Amino acid sequence: MIRDLADDEARRALRLKWGTIPEGVLPAWVAEMDYAVAEPITEALHRAIDDGVTGYPRFEHGGELGAAYSRFARRHFGHAVDPDLVLPTVDVTAGVRLALDVLSEPGPMVMPVPAYSPQLAIAEITGRERVDLVVDPDAARAGIDLDRLDRLFRDGARTLLLTQPHNPWGRVFSREELEGVRDVLTRHGGRVVSDEIHAPLVLPGAEHTPYLSLDGTADHAVAVVAASKAFNIAGLKCAQVVCGDEATRDRLWRVPMARNDSWSSLGVVGSVAAYEYGDPWLAALLERLDSQRSLLADLLAEHLPDARMRPLEATYLAWLDLRAYGHDDPAAVCLEKGRVQLSAGADYAPGLDGHVRLNIATSPDRLTEIVRRMALAL
Amino acid sequence: MIRDLADDEARRALRLKWGTIPEGVLPAWVAEMDYAVAEPITEALHRAIDDGVTGYPRFEHGGELGAAYSRFARRHFGHAVDPDLVLPTVDVTAGVRLALDVLSEPGPMVMPVPAYSPQLAIAEITGRERVDLVVDPDAARAGIDLDRLDRLFRDGARTLLLTQPHNPWGRVFSREELEGVRDVLTRHGGRVVSDEIHAPLVLPGAEHTPYLSLDGTADHAVAVVAASKAFNIAGLKCAQVVCGDEATRDRLWRVPMARNDSWSSLGVVGSVAAYEYGDPWLAALLERLDSQRSLLADLLAEHLPDARMRPLEATYLAWLDLRAYGHDDPAAVCLEKGRVQLSAGADYAPGLDGHVRLNIATSPDRLTEIVRRMALAL
Repeated sequence: MIRDLADDEARRALRLKWGTIPEGVLPAWVAEMDYAVAEPITEALHRAIDDGVTGYPRFEHGGELGAAYSRFARRHFGHAVDPDLVLPTVDVTAGVRLALDVLSEPGPMVMPVPAYSPQLAIAEITGRERVDLVVDPDAARAGIDLDRLDRLFRDGARTLLLTQPHNPWGRVFSREELEGVRDVLTRHGGRVVSDEIHAPLVLPGAEHTPYLSLDGTADHAVAVVAASKAFNIAGLKCAQVVCGDEATRDRLWRVPMARNDSWSSLGVVGSVAAYEYGDPWLAALLERLDSQRSLLADLLAEHLPDARMRPLEATYLAWLDLRAYGHDDPAAVCLEKGRVQLSAGADYAPGLDGHVRLNIATSPDRLTEIVRRMALAL
Repeated sequence: MIRDLADDEARRALRLKWGTIPEGVLPAWVAEMDYAVAEPITEALHRAIDDGVTGYPRFEHGGELGAAYSRFARRHFGHAVDPDLVLPTVDVTAGVRLALDVLSEPGPMVMPVPAYSPQLAIAEITGRERVDLVVDPDAARAGIDLDRLDRLFRDGARTLLLTQPHNPWGRVFSREELEGVRDVLTRHGGRVVSDEIHAPLVLPGAEHTPYLSLDGTADHAVAVVAASKAFNIAGLKCAQVVCGDEATRDRLWRVPMARNDSWSSLGVVGSVAAYEYGDPWLAALLERLDSQRSLLADLLAEHLPDARMRPLEATYLAWLDLRAYGHDDPAAVCLEKGRVQLSAGADYAPGLDGHVRLNIATSPDRLTEIVRRMALAL
């Protein structure tokens, strides 16, 4: 059911990932998958275009999008979401920005780091200070240091931007960890914006706990979710903000239109199709990604034995510690000498040398060639 | 070449304009047209979906989008635009917001009023004061009072949000008027953000002058343009910011991604198709709109002889002064008693009674029925 795109197909389809790098370079950077889009999505898009759905989407919360997400959340996470507490937004980062602008007090925002790089700028854009909660690169496990989090909120932080499952850590937080976060936030009256875009990409062995499924989070948190990452439809432009209560929903909904009216009609169509009819494809995808992560472990053991990688519990993005190979910017070395395009670690953790993010959502052959080339380059 | 959508087709296609009003109500409100989308656009969209173009668009200025717009601007406006000075953005209002955030000093923003309603909030959203340059509803002609504009800039205004052609005035500004604006702005070192989304919709008898085509504007202005309004593809989500020089382009391009990375891949596809292959359809559209505006004049003369309307030089949105009929909110009266959905004038000019905006981009039969119902209601 998962169909690998041939190189020429991938270059036509993935205009950023494949379309902006030199011929002959293997792309393993931006978070897109080298797989054909699920048929229920392309069918729904073709139908919508035949119907002429190119005008404005409905400006509504809930609706078919809220209902579709609510059913998806119940099936996949056992989480009961009131459809009418789901608001559309153009993409996850725009949803995070909206939540910060509208809901959060002006104090500093805590950001666990390494972090999703475009969101490193979101504190500045929304006029607040960013306080980093940095994971020690030598830590056996990437986690949120609750004592440090507590101190930061005691010292004035007002918001935590949580990414869970975490990109690029590859971590799925346990219920206990999230409860610890919740307790700190409740103690200090802080806010949480929980970016859960990778929730459908939890791999076998782990389980996603929506932050809003914890008791006592409804009044201080929103989640920002999307079908975009799991179904390779980030370019369609539709994400959702899930609120915990009506008061929060109303605050977000009553902003001037110009703050949040940019989601696309075809984004709604694609997202509804993904949530309602994408389960079989998603199940096949998770199988494929599970086998890709095993393959990566084998390839690293064989070709890059000194690479260090924590267990990849979710996402298709592996965070690799390559410091043993002695390059400050191994992504640059791999591009120049290996013709592999990785994401540079310093983009996610400013000032951190020797790390890369590697995208494994490709064919086994390509992944094998990517690691082989990396080993030669390093 | 212009195909009228039947009611059931319109309800499927136009999810906001037709999809959110009660059955039996005739919609003449939001700026969308009851016509089938041009074939070169739907063909390009189908092809893109077959190709799997659902991932991220290229993050680039210029490119095929810049080239397509540049060729369109040359053919339609005789305006030479360097393709590489064209940046994508998700929609026109987002482009205006970006330009204000990045380019404009913090002082007050001047807004000619009546104004496009969602943009009335843009000053507040970008943290500046809005100063209205209000057109006297009794003025024979809607224009920009240059003396008053000069005073506002002398008193501290830093930016003019120009809409040209103007919605909802229906005005196309002459070169002389725009030169007058330019002279005021130059005198005070102010900035112009020129929303030119309606430029392709200039009707026979008038001619669009791009603000950036005037000498001495390159360093103080950007235009925000799109194929969305002329081609009925606002839901695809792609607009363009046209810069006058590289320095401006670089300032806009070097912002953190999270400020401007939300345009859609299919929006790029649709816009390129519209700009490159949409001319014959657009020519037919302008003919149709020309005849609709004549029809409207006839219908008003017959059914609503005391309605006042200035010449409609561009757009398919007529601004009607219905004060003679004695209703504060004639749109509400027309909806309740006439089952016609108009846009309330007060949404465009806060505090102004007795006006409506009427969308004429429908079939002659529907327009006839709309005006007939309005007359009965009023």
